[in-house]
Amino acid sequence: MSVAAGGQGEAGGPRLDLAIKVGGAEGISYERFARDLASMMGGAPEAYVPAGGCQAGGGRSNDGLRVVVVHGGSSEANVLGEALGRPQRFITSPSGHVSRRTDRDALEVLMMAVAGKVNKIIVERLQRFGVNAIGLSGMDGRLLVGSRKTAVRYVEDGKTRVLRDDLSGRVEGVNVPLAWGLVTAGCVPVVSPLAISVAGEPLNVDADLCAAAIAGAFRARRLVILSNVPGLLEDPADPRSLIRSIPAQSLASYQRYAVGRMKKKILAAAEALESGVEEVVIGDARVDDPVTQAVNGGGTVIR
Amino acid sequence: MSVAAGGQGEAGGPRLDLAIKVGGAEGISYERFARDLASMMGGAPEAYVPAGGCQAGGGRSNDGLRVVVVHGGSSEANVLGEALGRPQRFITSPSGHVSRRTDRDALEVLMMAVAGKVNKIIVERLQRFGVNAIGLSGMDGRLLVGSRKTAVRYVEDGKTRVLRDDLSGRVEGVNVPLAWGLVTAGCVPVVSPLAISVAGEPLNVDADLCAAAIAGAFRARRLVILSNVPGLLEDPADPRSLIRSIPAQSLASYQRYAVGRMKKKILAAAEALESGVEEVVIGDARVDDPVTQAVNGGGTVIR
Repeated sequence: MSVAAGGQGEAGGPRLDLAIKVGGAEGISYERFARDLASMMGGAPEAYVPAGGCQAGGGRSNDGLRVVVVHGGSSEANVLGEALGRPQRFITSPSGHVSRRTDRDALEVLMMAVAGKVNKIIVERLQRFGVNAIGLSGMDGRLLVGSRKTAVRYVEDGKTRVLRDDLSGRVEGVNVPLAWGLVTAGCVPVVSPLAISVAGEPLNVDADLCAAAIAGAFRARRLVILSNVPGLLEDPADPRSLIRSIPAQSLASYQRYAVGRMKKKILAAAEALESGVEEVVIGDARVDDPVTQAVNGGGTVIR
Repeated sequence: MSVAAGGQGEAGGPRLDLAIKVGGAEGISYERFARDLASMMGGAPEAYVPAGGCQAGGGRSNDGLRVVVVHGGSSEANVLGEALGRPQRFITSPSGHVSRRTDRDALEVLMMAVAGKVNKIIVERLQRFGVNAIGLSGMDGRLLVGSRKTAVRYVEDGKTRVLRDDLSGRVEGVNVPLAWGLVTAGCVPVVSPLAISVAGEPLNVDADLCAAAIAGAFRARRLVILSNVPGLLEDPADPRSLIRSIPAQSLASYQRYAVGRMKKKILAAAEALESGVEEVVIGDARVDDPVTQAVNGGGTVIR
């Protein structure tokens, strides 16, 4: 399979088995995540399998399962910003959504924390378990082409103000040939939530929506969104109130249960399902085998 | 061209036109470097050319010139370490060579500064000028497989001591199929000097030697090493004492002119030439058109 051909010729075009978003909140272990994903991809995860590289026959990721991983890292960026005396700032939209104020300085902190540290640590963990992970940001090879939000509305002192220089954006397109070439060559792309605009600007994009865009572009069979909650809860304070199953067509009516970050995950699930993804699982990243549990119906299954 | 095939079937196998190492010292502008490389690759560098992505027909890098860029960033890592109150430490070998003490903490600072900030800023600059750059570290897809230095000798208080836990290493192998698949698909790989060991350990490797290893693995027609000096000088204090041309077979006798970092560049040049690279240019990164000048014989030309 060629990077250039990008899956053309395959019946129905490129198709991922699994797109995974793994969050970076407290209690989440990339080590457990990597061990579990490696074991799902076949072979004893303890034994490191040196592979011929990112090519057919190389890497455990070639055992059939076609996977792309998207990670977060906003908490890591906040910690780095604090340590540098460059604390990250946040703005609240008129609708109450809180987001990062992404000026140039904040963007460079994101590059360091997310594309530098978090991305390479996940790649390292997967490599240790024999998965030939390849870390990329959405800027690289124009993997994720986005549009910059040229007017970001936010509320301050009760007044609505507008930012015109914010470097946050939305993913508009996925470079499927690039990602497909890597996946079919035996790699697992590990993607940082940065995109690039048509004008060549780096953009801070939401990681859950990145994962949805990638899953959608590949009509992935399954999108798994892992974070530090068991899934969508009827009562956010009660883990036992997990909603186990939601029919895709009635997802909208469950939005009322989503608070905070969960709103974005429900939106991501909706976008992925609309793009042809068969099943979305919002699962718990804090368990020993987070991917296996999610794929086996742990968490909230939407289909 | 397929990532998997990796250039097999091409007469003589994969071959790069140009491998470039660009340093990160003061006075070096990635903006000028990117504009110059973009113009060399064809087209007006001012006009951004959105491309179909990392694939045939996408990106100015598809105009024929096959290029890989390797960057440094140790100075950026030192600045970040200081800002974080985690100053980088350096050790001096019995032979007087100074190198970074790469414990786990220093490695994570390198990941952030070099693979995070420097790599993405170079990718951004190239993307702005229409070159479809793809930033990778040597860990990614096992692009650079290295061996860890399991016993690093250094001198302290006049005594020679040994470090057994240092995460520095040497590049032993290049994943040619991966890099070739990307290059022939129209991308310019931009590589951070981190490697991965067969055991899956991330390794801090010398960027000049990385560039030499990549140039050698592809028998590149030319390796250009750009830094903040005009080239190899007879008198390090006198820029006018530039040595313009060195026959490859007598390079060893010029080692005596090399001081400090230049020693590694001469060693890199020697390794590249031994691996079949036709010409190495040690050039000045501080000029307006650093790549063009080096390719046209500016700096010290070794062949």
